[in-house]
Amino acid sequence: MRVEIINTGTELLLGQVTNTHLGFLAQSLFGLGLRVERQVTVPDGAAIVEAFREAMKQAGLIVVTGGLGPTSDDITRDAAAEAFGKNLIFHQEILDGIAEKFAARKFAMNDLQRAQAMVPEGGVVLPNANGTAPGLIVENDRTVAVLLPGPPNELRPMWENEALPWLRQRFSGQLATVNEVTLRILGMGETRVQIVVEDDIKALGPVEVGYCARPGEVDLRLIGPDRDLVQKAATLARRKLHDVIYTEGKETMEQAVVRLARAAGKTVATAESCTGGLVASRITNVSGSSDMFRYGWVTYADEAKTAELGVPEALLKQHGAVSPEVARAMAGGALRISNADVAVALTGIAGPTGGTPEKPVGLIYIALAVKNGETQVVEKNLSPVRETFKYMASQVALDLVRRALG
Amino acid sequence: MRVEIINTGTELLLGQVTNTHLGFLAQSLFGLGLRVERQVTVPDGAAIVEAFREAMKQAGLIVVTGGLGPTSDDITRDAAAEAFGKNLIFHQEILDGIAEKFAARKFAMNDLQRAQAMVPEGGVVLPNANGTAPGLIVENDRTVAVLLPGPPNELRPMWENEALPWLRQRFSGQLATVNEVTLRILGMGETRVQIVVEDDIKALGPVEVGYCARPGEVDLRLIGPDRDLVQKAATLARRKLHDVIYTEGKETMEQAVVRLARAAGKTVATAESCTGGLVASRITNVSGSSDMFRYGWVTYADEAKTAELGVPEALLKQHGAVSPEVARAMAGGALRISNADVAVALTGIAGPTGGTPEKPVGLIYIALAVKNGETQVVEKNLSPVRETFKYMASQVALDLVRRALG
Repeated sequence: MRVEIINTGTELLLGQVTNTHLGFLAQSLFGLGLRVERQVTVPDGAAIVEAFREAMKQAGLIVVTGGLGPTSDDITRDAAAEAFGKNLIFHQEILDGIAEKFAARKFAMNDLQRAQAMVPEGGVVLPNANGTAPGLIVENDRTVAVLLPGPPNELRPMWENEALPWLRQRFSGQLATVNEVTLRILGMGETRVQIVVEDDIKALGPVEVGYCARPGEVDLRLIGPDRDLVQKAATLARRKLHDVIYTEGKETMEQAVVRLARAAGKTVATAESCTGGLVASRITNVSGSSDMFRYGWVTYADEAKTAELGVPEALLKQHGAVSPEVARAMAGGALRISNADVAVALTGIAGPTGGTPEKPVGLIYIALAVKNGETQVVEKNLSPVRETFKYMASQVALDLVRRALG
Repeated sequence: MRVEIINTGTELLLGQVTNTHLGFLAQSLFGLGLRVERQVTVPDGAAIVEAFREAMKQAGLIVVTGGLGPTSDDITRDAAAEAFGKNLIFHQEILDGIAEKFAARKFAMNDLQRAQAMVPEGGVVLPNANGTAPGLIVENDRTVAVLLPGPPNELRPMWENEALPWLRQRFSGQLATVNEVTLRILGMGETRVQIVVEDDIKALGPVEVGYCARPGEVDLRLIGPDRDLVQKAATLARRKLHDVIYTEGKETMEQAVVRLARAAGKTVATAESCTGGLVASRITNVSGSSDMFRYGWVTYADEAKTAELGVPEALLKQHGAVSPEVARAMAGGALRISNADVAVALTGIAGPTGGTPEKPVGLIYIALAVKNGETQVVEKNLSPVRETFKYMASQVALDLVRRALG
């Protein structure tokens, strides 16, 4: 079955909001054996009807996001009714439900909310646990369209709890299985990865090999209809790339770190200068991190490095804040004060200003201290773009922690 | 001129990577008076030719991202040549340039790189300062297509430094001006915003009014061809919404905080429990933040709150870590130790576990301490979704800091 996604919203096409719906829905649909073949973003307005008509030519399933709200630019409901040739019917029970939610939050109800109680004839209503606009399912003999609200905190639970169960039922027996292994690689370029593995994988048989490069990282994706073949290809790739694969599948670096630390019963502390708390924030994005993360410092100023982590002033004066010596002292201080098993410290030049010929923007020292062990210091030259630099630095730091825990 | 964007990449349609190109390009094109009318994502492969043909029907300018690399799934170059009916010509000087980059980084060159030296006949080559694949511009009598590499750190400087100047020259005289004001609002729902301002704005004349809601936030967007009218509408909206507008335009909350602190010559410190460093990381995403941010703590464990911020153990025992009393003590400790002018502290329950009937997931206390002033504590019930909770909490905390600095 061909799946297409229509994202509506002028704000997406103006670049004011990033489309996170595609990723969420695509991953979820993949779990049903469905691949999104095409995604289109159209502005609020008449283009939505056109996008429906275009998608309805080929798609068996269309997922549409946004434009279900109560304001004047929300017209997805009307566009679906028009494209499917259905009348919109007012549902009093939906308006009553919205009124209840307003009452519970002590907000004043207003007439605009009434638009959200209109349903294309014969449509299925998907309750919205986190907002007022219900989702809708409309279908004809060829195409099913699922309409979801735009705010991610409304869309996601509605998709998981309402739309997915409905789709599983509706298409039961028609959902195939796609086999996929994604190996996530840090520290080897994409052409090098291809050279190391692709010919040998292709020799095994028909496996689709894909590469996705991000700064400092590559995802190697193996997909195919034959489960055994995909697994064989994955085993081969794991063997050839074992030193640079940091995790697999959807697991993130920070999830791997939290998982390994919890499994080993170890704790981790962070001492950050140039990354400004990003390493700690990534760790604490993971549920359960409170078991393994207790202390973090953002010692952005030199005096903070001295006062909080005990970095000797003389060391800062002699070598400068961005030096292997200071990174080592920061990690040592963090380990000692927090009594953690592993401490990682970062000091570098995030830019765009502050670089010198000897210490250019992008230079960073990352130190890893472990209880009763040697402290290791890594020097890297990362991106001169501030947020990319911070991300890459956090990634290298978390990878050092991962290796120490693994 | 109609503008369309084609994003290529199976990884986008599998949901493994978020499309950040659309936002970047759309904002930049808007500055030229161009609005993106449609964006489509297609997988690596034959669909790219189809997407070119579809866009070429109406668009005067097509911007294409991805698929210019050296690996086997990179076929945008070939697809463009096919759609525009051009031959691909090998350019030795491009290959020489790539070889030089490999030599400088001491990487081994390989045959796969040769694909990147192929150019559609008559095409313009855009140098790649941060990678090997050059960008390309191909055109016929109706449509200009700009092909850019997929990695954002390659695409962005190439767009700014190579493609934009070329487009300005090529379309000089044809670029109109679009007037836009975006007011960014925290703490008022979108229907309430509409009710407060829309009728009065519409009464002024033809101004397009758009709303974009995110958790706890709304962007109010005013767009129109008449500069004075858009400004008049903005003045009206500012007057009616002055208490909830935190910034305007592209400025983020953290940029507003850093700007205000630097202007006032004040410093800010952070003490975070449940947000785990996110507030500090957002502040330090802003270039120049080292002037106003020197100390941050991530006191995730109770013992860290006591050891690092001097929160009395008795207070933790009596009220629990998630309490107004502990938030207040954290902020006070951070202010005192850092000697900052403003300190903000956060303690809450990020979930998904750890909630109780009295203290449910999503509950947070945020304290703001100011030098020689009263400490203020705010209680909020935010999203039960962990990352949304963290983001919303950081947003409220930064807004408190902003108000204290403003």
